[in-house]
Amino acid sequence: MEHMASLSLSSPTPDEVAVEVEGEGGGSSSSSSISKSKAKKDAKKAEKAEKAAQRLQARSRPAAAASESDEADPLSSNYGDIPVQDIQSKSVTGRTWTRVKHLCAEMKDQSVLIRGAAQVIRPVSKKMAFLVLRQSMTTVQCVLLVSKDLVSPQMVRFATSLSKESIVDIEGLISVPKEPIKGTTQQVEIQVRKLYCVNRAVPNLPFNIEDASRSETEFKKAEETGEQLVRVGQDTRLNYRVLDLRTPANQAIFRIQCQVENVFRQFLLSEDFVGIHSPKLIAGSSEGGAAVFKLDYKGQPACLAQSPQLYKQMTICGDFGRVFEVGPVFRAEDSYTHRHLCEFVGLDVEMEIMEHYFEVCDIVDRLFVAMFNHLNKNCSKELESINRQYPFQPLKYLPETLRLTYDEGIQMLKEAGVEIEPMGDLNTEAEKKLGKLVSDKYNTDFYILTRYPLGVRPFYTMPCYDDPDYSNSFDVFIRGEEIISGAQRVHLPDLLTERAGKCGIDVNTISSYIDSFRYGAPPHGGFGVGLERVVMLFCGLNNIRKSSLFPRDPQRLTP
Amino acid sequence: MEHMASLSLSSPTPDEVAVEVEGEGGGSSSSSSISKSKAKKDAKKAEKAEKAAQRLQARSRPAAAASESDEADPLSSNYGDIPVQDIQSKSVTGRTWTRVKHLCAEMKDQSVLIRGAAQVIRPVSKKMAFLVLRQSMTTVQCVLLVSKDLVSPQMVRFATSLSKESIVDIEGLISVPKEPIKGTTQQVEIQVRKLYCVNRAVPNLPFNIEDASRSETEFKKAEETGEQLVRVGQDTRLNYRVLDLRTPANQAIFRIQCQVENVFRQFLLSEDFVGIHSPKLIAGSSEGGAAVFKLDYKGQPACLAQSPQLYKQMTICGDFGRVFEVGPVFRAEDSYTHRHLCEFVGLDVEMEIMEHYFEVCDIVDRLFVAMFNHLNKNCSKELESINRQYPFQPLKYLPETLRLTYDEGIQMLKEAGVEIEPMGDLNTEAEKKLGKLVSDKYNTDFYILTRYPLGVRPFYTMPCYDDPDYSNSFDVFIRGEEIISGAQRVHLPDLLTERAGKCGIDVNTISSYIDSFRYGAPPHGGFGVGLERVVMLFCGLNNIRKSSLFPRDPQRLTP
Repeated sequence: MEHMASLSLSSPTPDEVAVEVEGEGGGSSSSSSISKSKAKKDAKKAEKAEKAAQRLQARSRPAAAASESDEADPLSSNYGDIPVQDIQSKSVTGRTWTRVKHLCAEMKDQSVLIRGAAQVIRPVSKKMAFLVLRQSMTTVQCVLLVSKDLVSPQMVRFATSLSKESIVDIEGLISVPKEPIKGTTQQVEIQVRKLYCVNRAVPNLPFNIEDASRSETEFKKAEETGEQLVRVGQDTRLNYRVLDLRTPANQAIFRIQCQVENVFRQFLLSEDFVGIHSPKLIAGSSEGGAAVFKLDYKGQPACLAQSPQLYKQMTICGDFGRVFEVGPVFRAEDSYTHRHLCEFVGLDVEMEIMEHYFEVCDIVDRLFVAMFNHLNKNCSKELESINRQYPFQPLKYLPETLRLTYDEGIQMLKEAGVEIEPMGDLNTEAEKKLGKLVSDKYNTDFYILTRYPLGVRPFYTMPCYDDPDYSNSFDVFIRGEEIISGAQRVHLPDLLTERAGKCGIDVNTISSYIDSFRYGAPPHGGFGVGLERVVMLFCGLNNIRKSSLFPRDPQRLTP
Repeated sequence: MEHMASLSLSSPTPDEVAVEVEGEGGGSSSSSSISKSKAKKDAKKAEKAEKAAQRLQARSRPAAAASESDEADPLSSNYGDIPVQDIQSKSVTGRTWTRVKHLCAEMKDQSVLIRGAAQVIRPVSKKMAFLVLRQSMTTVQCVLLVSKDLVSPQMVRFATSLSKESIVDIEGLISVPKEPIKGTTQQVEIQVRKLYCVNRAVPNLPFNIEDASRSETEFKKAEETGEQLVRVGQDTRLNYRVLDLRTPANQAIFRIQCQVENVFRQFLLSEDFVGIHSPKLIAGSSEGGAAVFKLDYKGQPACLAQSPQLYKQMTICGDFGRVFEVGPVFRAEDSYTHRHLCEFVGLDVEMEIMEHYFEVCDIVDRLFVAMFNHLNKNCSKELESINRQYPFQPLKYLPETLRLTYDEGIQMLKEAGVEIEPMGDLNTEAEKKLGKLVSDKYNTDFYILTRYPLGVRPFYTMPCYDDPDYSNSFDVFIRGEEIISGAQRVHLPDLLTERAGKCGIDVNTISSYIDSFRYGAPPHGGFGVGLERVVMLFCGLNNIRKSSLFPRDPQRLTP
């Protein structure tokens, strides 16, 4: 049996609604029901169905009253609210449904049937109205024009009575206007013949999709001309994420995210990696200091995995050679920044290495170059959509990714007048600065910094063979922000025990992890990436909440 | 910076080790270090490196003592334990490493360099030994035969001193024996010229891989001949999962799992679905009755998602049209059965439907037929591996998946003398029985049962248009066990509120979910599958713990 999902999704209170938008004027809706099933196989079934229909009809818009006033309309069957039972899997009609993205001039004069959201409803006169129908990232203009035996004035009235974002079924003929159509993706129109409302949106939406889709450039222009535009804040967007997700930029961002993950997987599968799933429920209450979410597991203390680190290493010890994982990662940190989330999607890789952790860097290099190439080549529409609302410069990257040592990075900063504690870590500011220096000198926004000081890396990081103060580790940067951390790991149980001890970790709490290396463990290394960060930084977004579907931060747990 | 993962992995206590296996006789190891870097760029670096080398060398096997006794061996540089610093990313040599799976007769007389686990070490005499080297699912026999100027008796002694499962580097020549080689996957041998140990396993492993790899048939045969075989129990396996994962069957199971997920994704991507990631941390403490893991989220009550149900529906309301998700699902149930886990991987699908929930069934049908075809065609080696240890009949399925209504199913059971409460749910026994009846009558182990009674489905399930006691829902069965649940969902907020109320759910706790449907929501449906169940039932495994990498059940939270 299917499980009910966790249900505690409470609405924001009214005063959390930062934007109040003028409604579309709900008003009365004229309606008339379309074909009703007649034949019933037996009387009992018919009676039951009738009762069900009555009960449910009572829930849909009051069609009867509206119908009366439209009694005179012989075309009344061409429009109206669809009765509920008709959207309850009543029949498979075999009708052909067309996707908006397929609409093109070659289809002129063809009749099409389309379902979508009524994004814009614009009355022109009593005899004419426009309706912009949206399906995900695509839109088409639909024209209602009163015409004898085809479109009645009542039908136009019905159309203009619809609330924005209502779901409608439209039948009509494709026409090709002489002038280009502004504001829709498709350059054809639909001359509407039939219009049925499948599901009405409330007349007063928390905000309009158009308002949520504007770029800063539009706001600046409006300011110059004195036009008043509604601005939808980040919190309001996230409170009504269901609406916010409908903007072209958001539609694009999550399609890009899906592609990033897909290239990640396909590249690694082609390189003999195996995709795994490690547990997120972990025994024990905590690790050395870092913030974890604790919970009770059947009476045992447990916590949520902060990374699949130990498990992906154990899988390498389990002889899988090369593995990757895509899964949630939980951090109970209090960081309220543009780049931290309490839950994000980790892209993790672990692999045997034969000689050098540069073998891991090689995978990073080829994987991400393949990913960027793919996005630029195959996701141009999505990137344009994002660019329209959130303009960004295309990512500069080299066919073979630049590698600098940490010391070289420090030296570059020093020469630019930025003093860094040589054996410390780079702070966000220094990372940004170094990103700028590297971009100027090497013409790339994507590079790898290797050989970090051992002291700033986790205990399981392999020290350098020639200097125990340094480590076989690396970070990777996009646009001056760290997105990847990786390293060779310590696969020798004695050294691992020593390192854990030096890092202040109670070795008893990780004995089964350390023991994993006692049964024959190959040298190995790997890296971890945050999916949301890759998307954010590739697209030059200013906030990681923009690339998380339903973000979780210290202040947000809903919706 | 890379995060340390959650670390509380404690070892099982000694008495949890159900099987004690004879060690390989650790003894002294003869060793000699191979090439050491000489040139140092500056004195300081050299000194530092020297100190590091000394410290680390102290950790590796005592090579000096052993070397002394082998002083007379002019071939001592051909074998030994690799010094630690040589596996600390000392250099990129550019040597070619060969994969065992690529070894074939065509490579006769070629020299190869291979790293792997010493699965079997068999001394034949003082002058000869065999070593079976393993890489994941592949094995090759390596021969050490004393030969002037090539292989010394001391080298053979070194080889036989190695503990099983130690990681070794072998250089040698490919030879093709006249007789087929039993017990290895590759039908060539390697005439060993060099043998270095990269990392020694402890001499006493919790169990041997061969013992963990035996089938019931082998045990029966042994019983007949009076041979004593060690049996490794399920708990011991899971306690030492790192070892257990090395069996051919387990290597195959998780490769099949990876393929199941991959076909799921690729099929859906090709059908215009978008892969999403919904949050696993959910506000509130519980839903109506079902068991959830609760936790504290920055002072707020929260719980772990029992499914992405509400979020995938909300994403459909967010105009994504068709979405899927692969991610962990958490159930704090007390079910200790062969088919329940407290954490598993959910494969979830949600999509707009134009007319009928059969559109969802169509996706299930084509997706799973494509998946089964793919597995049978592309994973024959993996399936054979599993079959060798856990014999199973290949899954019977039809090119177009059989659909029966729930009532038809009940009728079949009735005719077979099994009485079922007509408006209740099928219990496990009835499901099994029906699976048998369907298999006999329709020659398929995979079928869809539609139109379940509304009373046994979650509140968000759409009732049937013609009978409110039934619902637009379905379950899918493999070998008589349910693996998929799906349905059309209620997309009308008023009906949803009514249904939630009737199912005893406090509507206030789900107001933001219900509100999601107020802004224009298309008719939609979807389904959910457990990845581990698909793998278990396709492969006819008897326990879901076999298809979970690190299973979590009410009694197991480690490793």
